[in-house]
Amino acid sequence: MTSVKRTELSMFDGRQIFYYDSVSVDRIAVDKRPFEERPLPGEMRQDLLTGEWIAMASHRQTRAFLPPKEFCPLCPTLTDFGTEIADSTFEVVVFENRSPSFAAPSVALPKEVVQSSGRCDVVVFSDKHEGSFGTLPLTQMRTVLAAWIDRTRAISQLSYVEQVFIFENRGEEVGVTLNHPHGQIYSYPFVTPRTEKMLAVAKEHYQKTHKPLITSIIEREIKDEVRIIAQNEHWIAYVPFAARYPFEIHVAPKKFVPDFAELSEDVADTFPVLAKEVLQRLDGVFGIEMAYIAAWHQAPVRQGRDLLGLHWQITSIRRAPGKLKYLAGSESAMGAFIMDLKPEQSAQQLRDVKL
Amino acid sequence: MTSVKRTELSMFDGRQIFYYDSVSVDRIAVDKRPFEERPLPGEMRQDLLTGEWIAMASHRQTRAFLPPKEFCPLCPTLTDFGTEIADSTFEVVVFENRSPSFAAPSVALPKEVVQSSGRCDVVVFSDKHEGSFGTLPLTQMRTVLAAWIDRTRAISQLSYVEQVFIFENRGEEVGVTLNHPHGQIYSYPFVTPRTEKMLAVAKEHYQKTHKPLITSIIEREIKDEVRIIAQNEHWIAYVPFAARYPFEIHVAPKKFVPDFAELSEDVADTFPVLAKEVLQRLDGVFGIEMAYIAAWHQAPVRQGRDLLGLHWQITSIRRAPGKLKYLAGSESAMGAFIMDLKPEQSAQQLRDVKL
Repeated sequence: MTSVKRTELSMFDGRQIFYYDSVSVDRIAVDKRPFEERPLPGEMRQDLLTGEWIAMASHRQTRAFLPPKEFCPLCPTLTDFGTEIADSTFEVVVFENRSPSFAAPSVALPKEVVQSSGRCDVVVFSDKHEGSFGTLPLTQMRTVLAAWIDRTRAISQLSYVEQVFIFENRGEEVGVTLNHPHGQIYSYPFVTPRTEKMLAVAKEHYQKTHKPLITSIIEREIKDEVRIIAQNEHWIAYVPFAARYPFEIHVAPKKFVPDFAELSEDVADTFPVLAKEVLQRLDGVFGIEMAYIAAWHQAPVRQGRDLLGLHWQITSIRRAPGKLKYLAGSESAMGAFIMDLKPEQSAQQLRDVKL
Repeated sequence: MTSVKRTELSMFDGRQIFYYDSVSVDRIAVDKRPFEERPLPGEMRQDLLTGEWIAMASHRQTRAFLPPKEFCPLCPTLTDFGTEIADSTFEVVVFENRSPSFAAPSVALPKEVVQSSGRCDVVVFSDKHEGSFGTLPLTQMRTVLAAWIDRTRAISQLSYVEQVFIFENRGEEVGVTLNHPHGQIYSYPFVTPRTEKMLAVAKEHYQKTHKPLITSIIEREIKDEVRIIAQNEHWIAYVPFAARYPFEIHVAPKKFVPDFAELSEDVADTFPVLAKEVLQRLDGVFGIEMAYIAAWHQAPVRQGRDLLGLHWQITSIRRAPGKLKYLAGSESAMGAFIMDLKPEQSAQQLRDVKL
């Protein structure tokens, strides 16, 4: 594995932008758009009924919504239209979101308001406008991985960040507003509700077994066999025993690691091949591009680092061609999920796809 | 308030059906469809990562999907096509769901499988095919309320039910598969994740203040004033301080009551007028029928009855005409909500609607 080169530059409004390159190249393109003040960070409010924090990001209402290709803000800058990326070519780029839900703390807000402190980054997977993570060349996937690792390490140092969440939404059915292949990094000033719940369960499991929960889960999946989709030396992909979505796949390193910051190079090197296979199988089930949310669970920055293991959760709401699973009353209001498809059934369908 | 008459009959496959009538009428229509075995209850699996129960209802895959009006199973039976309701007219009807996610325990399942014990009922609001709860005449809304009260009381007696959840999904955007005005009752064999969380928060609040949480919330809303949409002697409607959805309205009785089973007649009598106003305001914001999930929070059957108060939570995913709020990475995978609209802003929009 060649090491990946990182170049840090500044955008027209002062935001940070990072170029990640697998070959040595000088990144010097200047963002020439006229200076603009960045929006103040929004406020956060605690839901009184659940204690959970809700970010109020009303400035997001005006963000770009499915612009045509020639006005894609994630394409390289090739004409007079200045995109978010000033260079005319690039491999992988990460920059701070222009309409962030969470941003660095500011002194400009009134004291009685709880600020949405944190950080939101956009990870652009390619300078080509079409595709998604799974359609990238393997080396490019590896560069994305290098960016995820580097960003997780750096953002974890910020005093106001408690959790780094890396994800990709694919497809307009899950609300994608830009079609250019990209993912996002949400860095929260709190431990999210889902992660808090997972930590509590993992803690109880650890006290009983002295093992991280994900380690026991992987042991069980290997023993049960029926839900495994694919595996290699370092990674395993399976449909979880109690999947919530018609197609849900978890991908985990076989050896426990809390987050990308601690993922070793050789384990990272074997991820792209497996990831590509898994995403091709997902698209192969119905022979269409499946809309999905691909979410990386990581241990929080400052707690539970021996409890919660890095893993990738891919969920698709498509249950059949032309039919979506909607989160209706039970799921949305009560958090109680109803599944139409048995996990062993969907695992079989995923394994049966001819690649 | 005239009392509502209930008639219990049996459907072709042995399911229970209840007619609720505000006038005295004999219900004797016989369901003449040929006998059919009911599906076995499905299994339930515990999500190992969160401890939450997921119902596996694979028989639901074949359920009716947006049938045309002449094959609507919720219309009265007027032709040779036998609908779920054998009578040729009715006011409000409740019957057991033909494809239930939860059903009465059966001895027919292998012992190692955890059964999805419980009950799923359909509440048909009207014998007219068009409309929704808010478009019913006031007396009809009151009859629906009588059905909710009666069903909550009866189902709460079942030993295998821990929580009774009453809700209405409106609009294809939230996955409605039948357009006929109706709601559902999900009776779970566990306390749902959302309710469990709410109980924990309400318990802490009670220990500090000796008040139910919802009582303190209503006091605060009355003091703050800015988020109130409407109120009358017994009920108040407001946008919650930390709303999760562009349009979210909570409606609560001003005096604490754990559930419908304990709701008094005079408080019930004043609900329809307020409910109609609230739902008309919601449709009035953009002048379109808003898709929504209208969910009744009730205290569980056997715990927290002094902690969790009855209230109605209406959430709409529409943030502007032609724009929906999707639950993407942050909401779906982490349970961390981002809101595009300030609650005070949406409350103002709802109040400004001319009725």
